[in-house]
This record gives sequence, structure tokens and C-alpha cells, in this order.
Amino acid sequence: MIKKRIYSPGPVDVSPYTSLEMAKPIMHHRTKEFEAVVADVVQGLKYVFQTEGDVLVFASSGTGAMEGAVVNTLNPGDKAICVVGGKFGERWSQLVSRFGGVPVDITVQWGQAVDPKVIAAKLDADPSIKAVYLQASETSTGVAHPVKAVADIVRKRKDTLLVVDGITAVGVMNMPTDEWGLDIVVGGSQKAWRLPPGLAFASVSAKAWGFVERCKQPRYYFDWAKEKKNLAKNTTAYTPAVSLMVGLAQVLGEIRAEGLDSLFARSASYAQAFRAAMKALGMDLFAPGSPSDSITAVLAPEGIDSGAIVKHLAAKYGITIAGGQDHAKGKIFRVSHMGYLDALDMVPAVAAVEMTLKELGHPVDLGAGVRAAQEVLVGA
Amino acid sequence: MIKKRIYSPGPVDVSPYTSLEMAKPIMHHRTKEFEAVVADVVQGLKYVFQTEGDVLVFASSGTGAMEGAVVNTLNPGDKAICVVGGKFGERWSQLVSRFGGVPVDITVQWGQAVDPKVIAAKLDADPSIKAVYLQASETSTGVAHPVKAVADIVRKRKDTLLVVDGITAVGVMNMPTDEWGLDIVVGGSQKAWRLPPGLAFASVSAKAWGFVERCKQPRYYFDWAKEKKNLAKNTTAYTPAVSLMVGLAQVLGEIRAEGLDSLFARSASYAQAFRAAMKALGMDLFAPGSPSDSITAVLAPEGIDSGAIVKHLAAKYGITIAGGQDHAKGKIFRVSHMGYLDALDMVPAVAAVEMTLKELGHPVDLGAGVRAAQEVLVGA
Repeated sequence: MIKKRIYSPGPVDVSPYTSLEMAKPIMHHRTKEFEAVVADVVQGLKYVFQTEGDVLVFASSGTGAMEGAVVNTLNPGDKAICVVGGKFGERWSQLVSRFGGVPVDITVQWGQAVDPKVIAAKLDADPSIKAVYLQASETSTGVAHPVKAVADIVRKRKDTLLVVDGITAVGVMNMPTDEWGLDIVVGGSQKAWRLPPGLAFASVSAKAWGFVERCKQPRYYFDWAKEKKNLAKNTTAYTPAVSLMVGLAQVLGEIRAEGLDSLFARSASYAQAFRAAMKALGMDLFAPGSPSDSITAVLAPEGIDSGAIVKHLAAKYGITIAGGQDHAKGKIFRVSHMGYLDALDMVPAVAAVEMTLKELGHPVDLGAGVRAAQEVLVGA
Repeated sequence: MIKKRIYSPGPVDVSPYTSLEMAKPIMHHRTKEFEAVVADVVQGLKYVFQTEGDVLVFASSGTGAMEGAVVNTLNPGDKAICVVGGKFGERWSQLVSRFGGVPVDITVQWGQAVDPKVIAAKLDADPSIKAVYLQASETSTGVAHPVKAVADIVRKRKDTLLVVDGITAVGVMNMPTDEWGLDIVVGGSQKAWRLPPGLAFASVSAKAWGFVERCKQPRYYFDWAKEKKNLAKNTTAYTPAVSLMVGLAQVLGEIRAEGLDSLFARSASYAQAFRAAMKALGMDLFAPGSPSDSITAVLAPEGIDSGAIVKHLAAKYGITIAGGQDHAKGKIFRVSHMGYLDALDMVPAVAAVEMTLKELGHPVDLGAGVRAAQEVLVGA
């Protein structure tokens, strides 16, 4: 018997309680019963996004909400800073240019965080820049970008929006939307929400709604103003992903019962434990300076392809993690700390990495990583 | 105890076998295991769409695939005939104009089918028309439009595409994509596929791919060429709705085991049985001339608001059907014959309508509708 254990940066493990909730008989979406689900979802999303503003929900992957952020706020010809330090930063830049905007890329070396001063300098040099797009947590590199510092710069400028891809950040790391003044924050169900993929979220500030009103970009499925009108009546513009919405209402109930402080503290301790474990094994982190708490990227040892580590973990131990993408391919492996996980779930992950490294010929002091993780977790 | 029974035109009932399949532990989408699911899904979709061409799959509602049909094939300024005889026909027209096209609306009275000659005349009068958009089954009225006759007209014109909303038709009524020469056919998971909502499909002919190549409309999440490239490698461009895809593979297996002929014959017999039942009760059908086999729209008796029938069925009998939309509101109720249904499921539906009508003060010969339905089903 080999159990399946998933530590990928999405999809993440789904609780069997949630899976069974979603397996209940389907309900029609134009009923009082489903309106109550939508009402719960909207309140719960506002809680997790820490906003009194709007949070919209879509039947799509996270990329759909990223596209929505662009087509609802950016006019053709508008310039927008895109922080490009990984695969998802590249996606912002692609989206901006695909819809006729002019991306002003700030290229950051993979594994490093953006320097907010560079953003400030660009904005000072060109006040016509209409938006700053970045990732809170760049899933491809395991970097947490300094969202608060960037927000402090952008918030003062009434003609510039801050758009944050929070797909692997919201619900993991503290990122108070209203307090920091984040205009748009995007999320996806298969991350901290510990649901299957298929739902995307976007918070929208009052300042962002002003941009939406002035935006001439054509849009229909991702028409945010239309979705807002419908959500106000506890319904959705188009047929919602009913079963996922039911699961979302259930998970949001669990999250509210636990409280955000506990959720953030737990996520941080899992990430710290895993990082400590890797260091104890003599491994180097890919993003040591500004690591995300949702995902840890680790450099494979010299002479071992990270893909071989990923494959061995899957084949021998039933563990799903992720390798590197694009030019990090073969170089890093990525382990997530999101989803239906508790502290003890870090132990088999670390143990399996230790055993895999040893089996692939890398010298490992078996148990050293596990002990280091325990030392973090025992104090958490 | 009141059991929930759903006869709405989507979402439809989901088999518990499918629900439990979707409740299995989540798998990562970049794995051999999930590639096998995608391969199954692609083959199964081609079977149901009856095409050797491409069938794409998206994490979205059906409207997302409708938008995709427009943004991948229609250039701004292009004229397109839209058959507008219901709420979903209106959606085609809105989509065309929203993305800069020029809708040439053919307005058809709600409850009636389009006359193909009118389409031929419009195309003859203006050969610059680039597309014809229509519904195979107009869900808001219960009308089946004459898709084959329209296809016979459009197929000959190399500069005009036929785009069919098959959301409540594919998998219910015989509509052989390749044989009839349908360029784009759109589907949605919460209909004949008897899954929760959250997946949309689109078949794309070789002729349609030519239009895609020449289409300058910006697109990203619904970029069909990108999706085609990924599907060829048994993957998807963006994170797929994994659990729904797993359910889809399971349902497609059931459909292939049953065979399309049986599926179409069953659906037709359920619809015929329900129509016969309504006639036996002295009720008038809203679309007597060209009824869809996926959904029957029935005129409420004089003096009874159809909304009251819908509400009574839900409150007293746990049955979900749909009322009328827009100007059919209060006038019609709609009962679907799609989903996880068998012949005997028609009996409680008819019985509950009989009892509801009686309880709302309409004279009814209880059992007369049930008997009429049985007479159809016994010979089926």
C-alpha cells in the first residue's frame, strides 16, 4: 500500500469532509437554498480577504480572474508595471500586452524579491503608468514579494492601481486588503481554500471600481460590474460551479471558526519547519531572502536533477510535489504548505525527501531534517 | 421526509457514482495519471460530439465557451447573423456586439423555431456575413431550431461559419457535427453530461480553425489555439477543474458503454412521454411546433402564475423545475429530461405537476397525465 500525499502548490489536498459535502445532491442555482450559499461565500471571502469591499467569484481557474483584472481596468494603450520574476509574473506581462496595454516589465532574477524602490522610481519617472501588477507569492520560485511596501508607494497615486496575484498568498500570509490599500487581489480555490480547482476570486476596491467604470476593454464572461450586481442579489451572472461553491461555503466556515491569526501562524510554522529541515540537510533554498510561506523552493544538490527527485517521491512514496518550470527546470523542487495539512504532515514530507536524496546517491543524515522540523513545530 | 428531485434545465441530477468518483483524493494536473484522464475525456467528447475534429474543454460555464466562439473567430466589424428567439439567442447577439461585431438579428417569436429560408435570404442578400449563431435547443423556450437545415445552407459558403450553442442539445438529440458540417458546437457539463456546472466544451472544425488563425480579437483565458496545443499533449493551458474532469471521464465512459443511439432514443421517449402527459391534462405546450427533447416548456393554465407552480412543486414535493424568463415569466414552466434520469423518473414529475395543479385550483383528472406518459414509455 502506498498512500497518496499531495504537497504540490495547487491542487492541494481536499478534506474528505469537504469532498463529501460537494458530493451531496446538486442544487439549482436559482433557489433560496443556493442564495444562502452565495451569501455565506461572499461574507466568508470578505473575511479572508480582510476587506469591506467587494470580492467576486468566478467559475474559472485563477488565470480567468487575472484576465478579468486586466480587461476590467486597463484601457488599450495604458502602461502598466509588471514585476517579472517568475512564470506568473510573465503571465501579467503577457495579459497586459495581449489586451493592448503596454507592459513596463521590471525583471527580477528568479528566486529574488522585487525592490520596491525600483517600482517607486519607475512611477516617479512616468506618472502616466496606470497600474502595478505583481505576485504576492510567486509560485514558480517560492518568493514572497514585499506587497505592503509596494502598496505604500502605489496607494498615494490616485491614477495608479495595485493589482496583486494572491493566488498562493491569500489565506496563507497576512495581507489585509483594506488596511494596506490593495486595489485588486486575485485568488484561486485550489490553494489556501483547500478545494479542487475551478473557482477564482477577485477583491475590488472603490478606487478599482473607478477604473472599471472608465475601462473600454470589451468583456462579457469576466464582466466584473455585472457580477457585482448579481452578487448583491446573492446570485451570479452565469451558472456558477455549484458543487465547488458548496465546498467553498463549508471551507470558509472552517476558516472563520479557526480564525485568520491561527491560520497564518500555522502556515508560517509549517513553512519554517520545512525550511529548517532543508537547511539541516545542507540543502540551499532557492529564495532564501524572501521566502513565501505557501511554498518552499529548494535547489537540488549538485549532480542530481530535481526532476528525478520529484519522480522518485511520486513513484516510491506516493508524494506529489512540483519541479521547476522553464529555466528552473531540473534545478529546483517545490513543496507546498497549503491545503488540508496539519503540523504532522510536514514530517512524512521531510522524511520522504531525506530518503529520496539518499536513494539517489546524495549523502544524508537520515532524520536530521525531521528533527529540525520538529524543533520548529514543537515551539509553534 | 421529502426527497429532492431535480428536473431543471441545468444543473441536472448527478449520479451518486459520479459524485463519489469526484470525491476521491485530488490528483495533480501535471501527472501521467491526470494525462490519462485528459486523454479519456478528449476521446469521449469526440464520440459524443460525433467529430474527428477538435473538442476543447474549459474551466468555465457554458457562457465562457460561447464567448470563446466569438473572440476566437469574429473580427471587430464582422457581421454575424444571430437567431434571437429566446434568452440564449439574445446572448449570442450581446456577445457579438460586445466584441465589436455587428449582429444581424433574426428575431423569432419565443416558442417558435427559425425558418431556415430567412437565414438563406439574409446570406444571399449580404455575402459579407461571416457567421450564423444559433441555439440547437433554446433553453428559455424549449424550442429545437432546425440545425441540419441551417447547416445545409451555411456549409456551402466558405466565408461563413455556423456556430451552434448545443448546451442543452449535445448528448440529448442527434446532431452529428462532422456529418452535418457544424463549425463550432458549444456544450456545458451541467446538462446532458449529468455533472455539476463548471466545465464547458467547444468542437472546432477545420474551417473554423481557419477563422481562428485570421481572428485578431485579443484573447487569453479562452485562447483556443493554445488550448488545442495543450490538449494534443493531454494537458490544459491553465489549471483544469480536476474533480469535474475526473467526473467527466467517468460519465463519458458510461455514455460510450450505453451508446449514443440508446441515449438519444431514451431522451426522446422521456420528452414525448412528458409532452403526452401535459396534453392529456389539457395543457398547452409553449413550443408545440418544434419541441426540444431536452426540455419541455408548458403554458400555465389561465389564471395561474407559472411561478406559483414552480414554488408549490419545490415546497410541497421537493421538485426543482424552472419558470419562465423575461417576458415568459409567470407564463410558462420548464421541465428538463436531461441528466441522471431514467424512464420511471418521468412518473413522479408528471404526478407532482398533476397534484400541484389540482392544489392550485385547476381542474385535473389525477393520473391522466401519468397514464399518457406510461403509454409512451411502455412502447419505448
